[in-house]
Amino acid sequence: MASNSKRTVCPLQIPKITQFKIGICQLKVTTEKSANILKARELIQAAAGKGASLILLPEMWNCPCSTDMFAKFAEDFSDIDSAPSLLMLSEVASSLGVTIIGGSVPEKDAGQLYNTCCLFGPNGEFKAKHRKIHLFDMGKPLLGEVQFKESDYISAGKNPTVVDTDFGCIGIGICHDIRFPELAMLYSARGAQLICYPGAFNMSTGAALWELEQRTRQDDSLYVASCSPSRDSAGSYAIWGHSTVVGPMGEIIATTGHDKTVLIVDVDYAAIQRTRESFPLESQRRSDIYQFVDVLTESSNS
Amino acid sequence: MASNSKRTVCPLQIPKITQFKIGICQLKVTTEKSANILKARELIQAAAGKGASLILLPEMWNCPCSTDMFAKFAEDFSDIDSAPSLLMLSEVASSLGVTIIGGSVPEKDAGQLYNTCCLFGPNGEFKAKHRKIHLFDMGKPLLGEVQFKESDYISAGKNPTVVDTDFGCIGIGICHDIRFPELAMLYSARGAQLICYPGAFNMSTGAALWELEQRTRQDDSLYVASCSPSRDSAGSYAIWGHSTVVGPMGEIIATTGHDKTVLIVDVDYAAIQRTRESFPLESQRRSDIYQFVDVLTESSNS
Repeated sequence: MASNSKRTVCPLQIPKITQFKIGICQLKVTTEKSANILKARELIQAAAGKGASLILLPEMWNCPCSTDMFAKFAEDFSDIDSAPSLLMLSEVASSLGVTIIGGSVPEKDAGQLYNTCCLFGPNGEFKAKHRKIHLFDMGKPLLGEVQFKESDYISAGKNPTVVDTDFGCIGIGICHDIRFPELAMLYSARGAQLICYPGAFNMSTGAALWELEQRTRQDDSLYVASCSPSRDSAGSYAIWGHSTVVGPMGEIIATTGHDKTVLIVDVDYAAIQRTRESFPLESQRRSDIYQFVDVLTESSNS
Repeated sequence: MASNSKRTVCPLQIPKITQFKIGICQLKVTTEKSANILKARELIQAAAGKGASLILLPEMWNCPCSTDMFAKFAEDFSDIDSAPSLLMLSEVASSLGVTIIGGSVPEKDAGQLYNTCCLFGPNGEFKAKHRKIHLFDMGKPLLGEVQFKESDYISAGKNPTVVDTDFGCIGIGICHDIRFPELAMLYSARGAQLICYPGAFNMSTGAALWELEQRTRQDDSLYVASCSPSRDSAGSYAIWGHSTVVGPMGEIIATTGHDKTVLIVDVDYAAIQRTRESFPLESQRRSDIYQFVDVLTESSNS
């Protein structure tokens, strides 16, 4: 089973596939894990049936977004045959020949829980996992939110995750990871063409920030795709929904409401090159004034 | 006459004034400098008359946004008595008892031209200047823009600018400076409560990016104010307009259209504290994964 290398940096090259359809599965998550797995499989099949070759699931797609549920629904990734959610993803990726960015599920490892995204290639291979780096710990409620302190239950990941796929270099962030532009800068510096954010923003932060955060990442002139559970999913708070694909100028290419749905969106990486040729921000950065350091590769990027 | 210290870092303290009205003067710029100075004075007076105590002017408020005009309209700041635009700002700041962030004017110094913002305090004192750091050099037009290569005419500034004022610590960026989140991160790390961006986005980048860039700076949970010339200003391209004030959650507090106008907006820095207490992003950053370095102060901020 693959694990993240701390120093994985994608090769800067033209990917095998530069034009493709991404399928975003905005699932309704219930309190029954087996039903969630079955429903996720159905929506992945539906997305593939509509031509998607890269498929994205939501954060916590096999488990309600409730901190007290995470331990019960968690799977141990060290033996995929005993991890039914991963097993399904691997099987369906292989049978359909698609790449799946498996949102996230609770992972148990050495007595700890993680909020983890698994990426499966079109032969069903487990290519990478991303453990949520920035956990969602709220301070005082500002907008009437339900209090939420993820770190009481979940341990934070230690590594950013960029994965070399047929669809180029893909960076992965989970939900609150999106609020940190540094992570997107890091992915961009490592060659990402697309950043996928499974997420489950609540009703207040969703209305205020969900779309903005995705469009904001145009600072890096790349594609962003997000996938949320549907609003009527089970859990401790109502979920915003509104899964979205954003282009390299921060433009919304496609979005949806809050109901269960499959969103199929055309992606063309040529737009990244056009944008960067028009606005050569990278070469205009001022390393004499500020520098951004990718600590784990010990490289600085101005 | 004051000059920027490379190492000016504002003290992290509660400013003298935390609730105030900012006046945004969306001026119509003509090809006559004396008329521009007169009109700017009138709009500053109008803003002060409506209660504004901090007043912001647009980029190139005394000069059309045309690269071939910059030399003709430029002023030498070394003798304010021979710099009519600065002299007016100093006099009107003093007579009205207001702080003025003087958009920008072309500055000539030692054979070079700069695109420079000058800040005057309520006693008319010249407190600081910011020379535009990131010049707007376009590559291939993407959205039908008029070609523009600012660096053929203007030299880039070498220093970020944060100024300690009665209204707290204010960071200054000019137009294209806004496209670099690193500059806002730097200002935030140095204690800025407000970043002011005089700017003159064109019709295509304006529609695509002007509002988004300002809202994007909620990554730093602070206030952002922008001021553009009006669309019917003289110059080589049509200007977007839409001067705006954005709060620390990325919310638009007030904005306007593209005509000449004065926008008066209530600012309350308590919103910054509330936002940061609710979303303690600063303490959630991961210095083990990425670091941001403020080169001129040689400090890193995670």
